[in-house]
Amino acid sequence: MDGSNTVADARRRALIARYGADPALPSGPWNAALDLMLAHRSVRGYRPDPVPEGLLETMVAAAQSAATSSNLQTWSVVTVDDMATRQALSEVAFNQKHILQAPLFLVFLADASRNARLAEQEGTELAGQPFMESFLVAALDAAFAAQNAVLTAESLGLSTVYIGAIRNDPVRVAELLGLPPQVMGVFGLCVGYPLPGMEGEVKPRLPQSVVVHRERYSTEGEQAARLEFDKRLSEFSARNGMGPAGWTQRVIQRLGTLKALSGRDRMRAAIEALGFPLR
Amino acid sequence: MDGSNTVADARRRALIARYGADPALPSGPWNAALDLMLAHRSVRGYRPDPVPEGLLETMVAAAQSAATSSNLQTWSVVTVDDMATRQALSEVAFNQKHILQAPLFLVFLADASRNARLAEQEGTELAGQPFMESFLVAALDAAFAAQNAVLTAESLGLSTVYIGAIRNDPVRVAELLGLPPQVMGVFGLCVGYPLPGMEGEVKPRLPQSVVVHRERYSTEGEQAARLEFDKRLSEFSARNGMGPAGWTQRVIQRLGTLKALSGRDRMRAAIEALGFPLR
Repeated sequence: MDGSNTVADARRRALIARYGADPALPSGPWNAALDLMLAHRSVRGYRPDPVPEGLLETMVAAAQSAATSSNLQTWSVVTVDDMATRQALSEVAFNQKHILQAPLFLVFLADASRNARLAEQEGTELAGQPFMESFLVAALDAAFAAQNAVLTAESLGLSTVYIGAIRNDPVRVAELLGLPPQVMGVFGLCVGYPLPGMEGEVKPRLPQSVVVHRERYSTEGEQAARLEFDKRLSEFSARNGMGPAGWTQRVIQRLGTLKALSGRDRMRAAIEALGFPLR
Repeated sequence: MDGSNTVADARRRALIARYGADPALPSGPWNAALDLMLAHRSVRGYRPDPVPEGLLETMVAAAQSAATSSNLQTWSVVTVDDMATRQALSEVAFNQKHILQAPLFLVFLADASRNARLAEQEGTELAGQPFMESFLVAALDAAFAAQNAVLTAESLGLSTVYIGAIRNDPVRVAELLGLPPQVMGVFGLCVGYPLPGMEGEVKPRLPQSVVVHRERYSTEGEQAARLEFDKRLSEFSARNGMGPAGWTQRVIQRLGTLKALSGRDRMRAAIEALGFPLR
């Protein structure tokens, strides 16, 4: 019943689940927020049970509380309940069935249009708007916000999965959601309760030594760490019925061919067509 | 001593701090994770006190636990302790003094170089790599990860502020941190304990009605909501010694002129120079 041992144990268990048997990290602080974040799993199968009343508003309040560049708040979110729209969105995104299943489905938007309307209403022009920076800030704002929304859902016992595959066809997504110019759906988000057996196992990540650099970027030890990580991800994949491929193989499968991009090789043109000049 | 009243009160207080006197939201769930997220303030003045041992590793464990597109993990982070490097980074970023003050300073990287090295070592090529999509995925991965890192620090009583201004000169940042091609510093992060009086007040955000869209994007009521929000942000700014400007004025100041971009109008060329073709 020693409180500090219990905390140390919770930390050790969470780190082992994420990094494997010996994460070799120094001792450090721990709390319930860390338990929550370390336990994240993306879930790809949902029960029809509705989400709690007020969940959306609570998720949005947390999302809006994330930092936003210069308080510009250049993101928005669309909730999609209509099943015809869901079906069309899932067709853009590899027919992922959880887009139809999840009781709550959101599309997060990089949204520079609110500023554009503001300027028009105020009779001025935003010379700083048509640049790559504006698009990037909007996408980053959407990501910071969405991550808080995800943690809100997970803290309340729900599960989530980001749907990056809506970027397979951003122009179609814009049509479906009636987006004005200077708005792009950057990713979707399914929210709900996992189907039995779909809760998933915490997915392994690269060791910290590969991701963290001290003072300057270093690739020392990276290749050996990757080969070791390949083994760990193979074991995870075999345990979870995803075939025996290691990480190296999966990266090459994902990025090795133009075909695997599933249309995202035309994404820059699509972003420009949506009204972001990306100068 | 009614537990549910206490929870409802905590929710009401947090929402009023973020949205003003009458957020007019339906009742909904609440917990300590929401208290944490809703209470976020960016802090721009730090005491010299060191951060707890193991904090960095704990932040990185949480950051790596965020979702990452196709498990590609295309982000990295550099810790900068060297004061000459901090000084040079602060010169890129409007000489923000908290970059020098904070006991922990991180630069989050959009990092496609790890995949490039992997392919080279495996004797293959990644045809899917040189696209806008790869850059965007890497930037989004960095943002999801960083948001978990921020919440880790805040859950342990520390404060943070993102430093987007390192994007004023991404090529200089890459030189300072020894970044290989296909890596870009997308934002910095200060972490530490606030100087007395620098804890800040929760910053108001636009009402949810402006940010959340049902089924399709709608601008109905947006202009009136913005003018109302202008008043609320003016009051906040006046209370916090930031002048009387409302939100509309601040957006126009930030984006109205090329000069206000502080070099970020050249960012697309800089990203390309760093080895992201952005096709």
